[in-house]
This record gives sequence, C-alpha cells and structure tokens, in this order.
Amino acid sequence: MLLNHKEVQQASKARRHAFAPEFQRGLYEAIFRRRDIREFIPDPVPDEVLARVLVAWDFVVVRDLERRREVMRVFEEERRKNAERFAGQRKKKFLSLKLEGILDAPLNLIVTCEPDRFGPDVLGKVSIAEVEVYSTCLAVGNLWLAARAEGLGVGWVSILRNDALRRIFGIPRNIIPVAYLCIGYTESFPERPLLESAEWASRLPPRSLLHFDSWDGRSDDEGDALATAMQSSAIWRSIFTDEPA
Amino acid sequence: MLLNHKEVQQASKARRHAFAPEFQRGLYEAIFRRRDIREFIPDPVPDEVLARVLVAWDFVVVRDLERRREVMRVFEEERRKNAERFAGQRKKKFLSLKLEGILDAPLNLIVTCEPDRFGPDVLGKVSIAEVEVYSTCLAVGNLWLAARAEGLGVGWVSILRNDALRRIFGIPRNIIPVAYLCIGYTESFPERPLLESAEWASRLPPRSLLHFDSWDGRSDDEGDALATAMQSSAIWRSIFTDEPA
Repeated sequence: MLLNHKEVQQASKARRHAFAPEFQRGLYEAIFRRRDIREFIPDPVPDEVLARVLVAWDFVVVRDLERRREVMRVFEEERRKNAERFAGQRKKKFLSLKLEGILDAPLNLIVTCEPDRFGPDVLGKVSIAEVEVYSTCLAVGNLWLAARAEGLGVGWVSILRNDALRRIFGIPRNIIPVAYLCIGYTESFPERPLLESAEWASRLPPRSLLHFDSWDGRSDDEGDALATAMQSSAIWRSIFTDEPA
Repeated sequence: MLLNHKEVQQASKARRHAFAPEFQRGLYEAIFRRRDIREFIPDPVPDEVLARVLVAWDFVVVRDLERRREVMRVFEEERRKNAERFAGQRKKKFLSLKLEGILDAPLNLIVTCEPDRFGPDVLGKVSIAEVEVYSTCLAVGNLWLAARAEGLGVGWVSILRNDALRRIFGIPRNIIPVAYLCIGYTESFPERPLLESAEWASRLPPRSLLHFDSWDGRSDDEGDALATAMQSSAIWRSIFTDEPA
C-alpha cells in the first residue's frame, strides 16, 4: 500500500496512540506464548509477583492442601464422566492427557463473578444477561497474560463442577465460580499448545474464520486482502525484529 | 523478603521464563490503558494492523453502513428499555452516556462462538457447558489488548439483542454472537474509564476482592501481605521505570 504525503501524515495522526514496537511486542509475546500449563515446580510465588497478576475481580487464593485434595477428587470423578463420551484410542488418549496441576502447583485460584454486586446498574445487563460473566472472563484473560509475562504458568481446570466448588469453599449460591486456575512456576512453556502437540485438536486456518458484512459474506475483495494479510508473516516484521527475549 | 544465596538461585531458576522488563511493561500498559472507546475518527484501519489484531476465532467484519444503521436502531430500542430501570438524575445520566460508536467507527466486528464446532471433543464441556463461550471471551480480551497496543480504540456494545443480530447478519441459530465491537482510531484514550469519570460506577478496593482458602477466609496472615502488596506502588517499580512511551 503506497500512500502520498498527506495520507502518511493522516495515518500517523490516527496511529499516534500506538505503543512503541517493544511494548507492542511484549503484548503479542504474551498472547502467543500463553499456554495451558499442567506441570508445575513447587517454588512459591512471591507476593509482589502475585499482586501484579491479580489486577482485578474477586479471587479465592487457595493454598490449603486439604481443600485441594477435595477438588482433586471432584476432578477425577468428572474426568471419568468425560471419558465415557469417547471410545477406543480416543478414550485412551483422553485419559493420558494431564489436564490439571491442582496439587503440584503452589497455589490454586478461583475467579468468581457476583452477578448482582452492582445491582441493576450494570450497563447492558437487561439486554445481555451474561455481561458480568463475560467481564470476569476478560479478567481471567488479563491474569493469564500477566502471569505469562511474569514467567508463571497458569492452567484452567474446566473438568470440575460449580456446585462442588461452592460446597468445598463455602461460596454462596449467587456467586458463579467462573474459573479454577492452577498457578506456579514451570519447567517449560511448550512451543505448541498441549492439545495440539498431543494431536487432540488442531487450529482452523484463518480464512475460514472471516466473514464479511454477513455470515455468508466470504468472498468480498477487501476481505481477501485482509485474509491474505492474516496469513502473511510480513505483518509481524515491524514488531518481531529479532529473536524473543 | 530477604533471601539467602541458595534461595536467590532457586528463585531465579523458577522465574527464568519471565519476560524482559520492557516486554512485561508492554503487556501491563495494554491492560491498564485499555478503555471502552465510544468516540472514533473515520480513518480506515490498515489491513496489516487489523490482521494482527484478529489473531483468533470467528469474526464478522462489518463495514456495510446499511446494516450498521439497522444495528443502531436495535441499540436505540434496547437503550430505551434499559433507561426504564432508572429514575430521575440516574436516568438522565444514563441517557447522556455515549455507549456505542456503531456508525462513527470505520468498522464493527461481531465475535461469535459456535458451541458445536468441535463436536463433543471439547475438554471439560460435559462439566462446564460454557467452556466455548469463555474461550471466545478470552479471544475478545486478546483482540482488545492488541488493538490498544496498535493505538486502535475498541468499544464493546452490550446494549443489543442477539436475535436481532442474527436476523441482520444472517447468523445461524446455533451460533452465539458473543461480542459486538466498534473499532477504529480515536482522538484520545481517557486516563480513567468512561463509567468511572462519569461517576456511574467506581472500583472496589482490592482488599475486598481477596479471599483465602474459602469464601469467608479474609484474615489470613499470608493474605494480608498479598493485599498490602496489591495496594503498594512499589510492586510496579521494576517494570514502570520511567514515563510511558
């Protein structure tokens, strides 16, 4: 895309709030290098680091081993139920995946959501009831990326039951335990996500994910340029100028 | 916290996956400077930038003005319904807030979720039905932070109805439109979130958000150290060494 002088000026005015390349890279590194970590080393997480990671929302910090053993029992029960959905090799593979670090991690964290905390004043709540749960997920996402930047592994344990978590931790009925996370340092962050390297799931090519102006709008010209850009490594050149830190 | 030589060695081993300070800062800058943007300037978003921001999931890219006008009508309808929940000054304030940039932004984006895309093989789905919606929210969070790092404003319009979005964009019944976003360059990123500066909502102090080992576990010693760390600016000194870029 070649721009004339006026367009260049205009473009740089529009983009003046962009971060410096090394800051942009810090964010993209976190997004791309985030992994669902299941292997932890027992080193404690310093309060200073944990305090930076816990930037928002309601958290239950779980270090107590007795309660974590109870959670582990619920996980095993749910895991068996999940396994029943698969057969043969697929079932065997499922049962071979390590899907939690409940007891290995130095701490577990429950991120909760209290839908009525702010009363009826939450904007958009009448229209989209899930607004607060969605916001809680964004908080989990931030926490996960911050942890990655700190070199801390996080694994989201989704094979659990909210009623069991409420019972074990005395969480009131109106509070939703959105995420149960295992947090701690780890030997390594795998290059590829666990479920991809275990050949459990693969990624869809970006082209199939793009729709233009309507659900069946896949063939628009502007769209093709965007889809091409999404598959090109050239778009990352200005940010990833050398090897990762 | 003073550590002996062996502990220091151990700590640095545990933390060896941490990012360099400027990369950590890039991420935290994005987390802290992300805003719900409602004011846009009409400059187009270059494909290269948009391609970096759209790192995952199913997106409908909406540039078509006719469809956006339809969305705007739905927004106005829902806004009136929401306003009925408030009275007097509160209602007046609600109606004065600008809560969308549907027509001003150069593009709108619908982030969707197809719960059955991967069949029954999504881990944890038996136990937690919302797994895929939660994952979609994480994708929205990544997109939002990436946009911030690119200097692009994003505003999440939550005052809409999914059935109306399905109708306008021909989205099938089994697809959930999780987020309707307005995206574009903006004159400024406000220092404080809009709803805070408009005195609509305020933040809760961090202490009230921490629970230890159970819902009513608020007074544990380790916890107090963590809560103190969360309120101390000292924890940011190693990362924010000077003024933002």
